[in-house]
Amino acid sequence: MRLALDAMGGDDAPRAMVQGALDYARAHPAHTVILVGIDGDLRRCLAQESPAGIPANITIEHAAEVIGMAEKIKALKERPNDSMNVSARLVKDGKADAMVLCGNTGCSVAAAQLHLRRIPGVKRAGIASPLPTITGQHTWVCDMGANAECRPEHLVQFAEMTSAFLEAVYQRPTPRVGVLSIGEEEEKGVPLTQETLALLRQTSLNLVGNVEGHDLFKGTVDVVVCDGFTGNIALKTAEGVFDAITTILKEEIGNGGPLVKVGALLTKPAFRGLKRRAHWAEVGGCPLIGVDGVTIIGHGRSDRRAVFNALGQAARCVDGKVMDRLRAFFKQAA
Amino acid sequence: MRLALDAMGGDDAPRAMVQGALDYARAHPAHTVILVGIDGDLRRCLAQESPAGIPANITIEHAAEVIGMAEKIKALKERPNDSMNVSARLVKDGKADAMVLCGNTGCSVAAAQLHLRRIPGVKRAGIASPLPTITGQHTWVCDMGANAECRPEHLVQFAEMTSAFLEAVYQRPTPRVGVLSIGEEEEKGVPLTQETLALLRQTSLNLVGNVEGHDLFKGTVDVVVCDGFTGNIALKTAEGVFDAITTILKEEIGNGGPLVKVGALLTKPAFRGLKRRAHWAEVGGCPLIGVDGVTIIGHGRSDRRAVFNALGQAARCVDGKVMDRLRAFFKQAA
Repeated sequence: MRLALDAMGGDDAPRAMVQGALDYARAHPAHTVILVGIDGDLRRCLAQESPAGIPANITIEHAAEVIGMAEKIKALKERPNDSMNVSARLVKDGKADAMVLCGNTGCSVAAAQLHLRRIPGVKRAGIASPLPTITGQHTWVCDMGANAECRPEHLVQFAEMTSAFLEAVYQRPTPRVGVLSIGEEEEKGVPLTQETLALLRQTSLNLVGNVEGHDLFKGTVDVVVCDGFTGNIALKTAEGVFDAITTILKEEIGNGGPLVKVGALLTKPAFRGLKRRAHWAEVGGCPLIGVDGVTIIGHGRSDRRAVFNALGQAARCVDGKVMDRLRAFFKQAA
Repeated sequence: MRLALDAMGGDDAPRAMVQGALDYARAHPAHTVILVGIDGDLRRCLAQESPAGIPANITIEHAAEVIGMAEKIKALKERPNDSMNVSARLVKDGKADAMVLCGNTGCSVAAAQLHLRRIPGVKRAGIASPLPTITGQHTWVCDMGANAECRPEHLVQFAEMTSAFLEAVYQRPTPRVGVLSIGEEEEKGVPLTQETLALLRQTSLNLVGNVEGHDLFKGTVDVVVCDGFTGNIALKTAEGVFDAITTILKEEIGNGGPLVKVGALLTKPAFRGLKRRAHWAEVGGCPLIGVDGVTIIGHGRSDRRAVFNALGQAARCVDGKVMDRLRAFFKQAA
C-alpha cells in the first residue's frame, strides 16, 4: 500500500509530518509513505530526524510550491505544483492508494475535489470526524467543516456515506444515525434539521432521531449529521474544553500543597489513559467522504502521533475497500 | 430585594429549588425568596428540608398548575396559573424584583416575553450564558437557545445588550466582542456571521472579529454572539465534554492500581478547584437579556448549588440596575 502524505501542511510541517511518517514506516514495513513536498527540505528533515538512515519504505515526491495555512482556495490554481495538488494527482494517477493532508482545510478539500472529483451521485463531500466517547467507540460527526452551508439532501447523503464507511472500515453493522439539534423532540431545531429528519425517515438507515451536543460523547449514536459550520463549532468547542480542563487542572496542582503534587504524580497513569482515550491526536484523521479516492484530512495542529494515526486511518480505509462500497451504493441508488 | 423562584421547574423540582432557596435565604437575610408553586407541595418540601423552621425571608406564592419539561409553549396559555406565568406576573406587577426559572426553557422564555414584554427597541431577547475560561473571567455567549434562527441585526443587539450587561453588572469596561464562526479570517463563516461582522464594525463596540469554538474558554473575549441553535449546541457540547472527561478519569482511576487510587485521593483538592472554576452549576444561571424585567434562566439539571447561584445572579442584575442601563441604551438609540 502506498500512502501519499502532504509533508508541507500543518502548523509544525515538515517536522511533525516527517516524524509521523518515520514512525508509521517503521511500524508498517509493507506500506510505503510518499512524502510530498520540497525535496531539499524533506531530505534535510529526514536526515535530522533519522540520522541512522531513511527506511526503504519512505520515498519523496518533489513538489516545488507550498500553500500556507491561511491562504485562499485560488492558491491551488495559482500554484499547480504545490504539495496538495501533487498529492492529489498521485492518487488520481494510481501512484498512491490514499492521501493524508494536514494543511489548510479549505484548500485540502478543494484539491481533493478538483483532482479526484466526487463519486458519481454524490452532491457534496463531507469531513467525517471521530469523537471519543465514554464507551471507547467513536461517534462520527459529518460534516466537520467542508461545507459551511448545507441543504437537507446533503445531510442525508452524509448519513448514508458515513454509515457505509463505518460498516466497511469498522465492521459496525447498521450504525445508529442522529441529527445534531437542540432538543430530542422532532419539532425542535431549524428547518435544515427538521427537513433532514423527515428525509432520513424515508431511508433504510438506523435512525435514532435528534441528538444534542452532550449526546456526542455518550457512545449512544454512531453517526451524527450536521452542516459543516455547526460541526466545526462543536469539534473546536470540544477541543477547547479538553484543553481548558487540562490547563486548569495543571494550575490547581501547581498551586496545591506537596501532597497534591505527589498525588498528581501517582495519578499519572489515569491521566495517560484519559489522553489515550480522549485526546484529538489519537483519533487519526478524518476521511473526506464522497470524494472518489481515499482522502484523510488531518488536524492543522498535528504532531507526530496525530500524523502516525492519520496514516493508519488512511490504510484502514484502503483495507476496508471503502471506495468500492461507496461507488456501489451510489450506482445502485442511481 | 424580592426574588421570585419558579419552584416547580427543573429535573429535581421542587426539592432542588427549595434547597437552593433555603441556602440563599440564610446567606442573604436582607433578601426575600418567593417560592412559586403548589402551596401544599412546597410546605411539605420546606418542612422536610428545614425541619427546624422556615426562614422568615422565604415566602410562598401559590400557583395551582405546573408545566412539564417537555411541554410546548401553548401550555402557557392553557394553564394561566402555572408557576411560570405566576412568577412573571409577580415581576410585572412589581411584587418581585427579578425571577429565576429553571424549567422548560422554551416556555420560560415565552412566559417572560408574554408578561414582561421586550424593552422598547429590542427585536429579540437572548439568553446570555457565562462560560468558564482558564483566566477565571467568564466569556458570555448570547444567544444560548432562545432563538433557534436569527438575523444579523439580532446578533448585533445581542452584542450591544450583553456588553451593557457586563459593564453594569460586572464592571467590565468596553467588553471585547466576537462573532462565533469557523475561522478567524473575515470571509470565513456563513452569511449570518459575515453580515453580523460587517454590521458590528459600524458600532462603537470593542470588536475583536470572528472567534472559534476553542476561543470560548481562553478568556480572550468577553462577549460572543451567535444564533441560539449554534449557541445551544456549543454549550451542550462543552457540558458533554466536561462530563465525559470526568467519567473517563473516574474509570481510569477505578481501574488503576492502589497507588493510582491513593494519588486520586491526594489530588482531590485540585479536582475540587476544577469543579469550582469550571462546572456549569457554578456559573449561576443565564440572564434573558432584552426582556423588560430581570429574568434568569437556570439549567434544567439545576441542583441546590446551581439554584443558589442563579438566585445570586438575579440579585447581581438587580443591584447593577441592568434594566435601567438597557432601557436608557435603547431609548438613546431610537
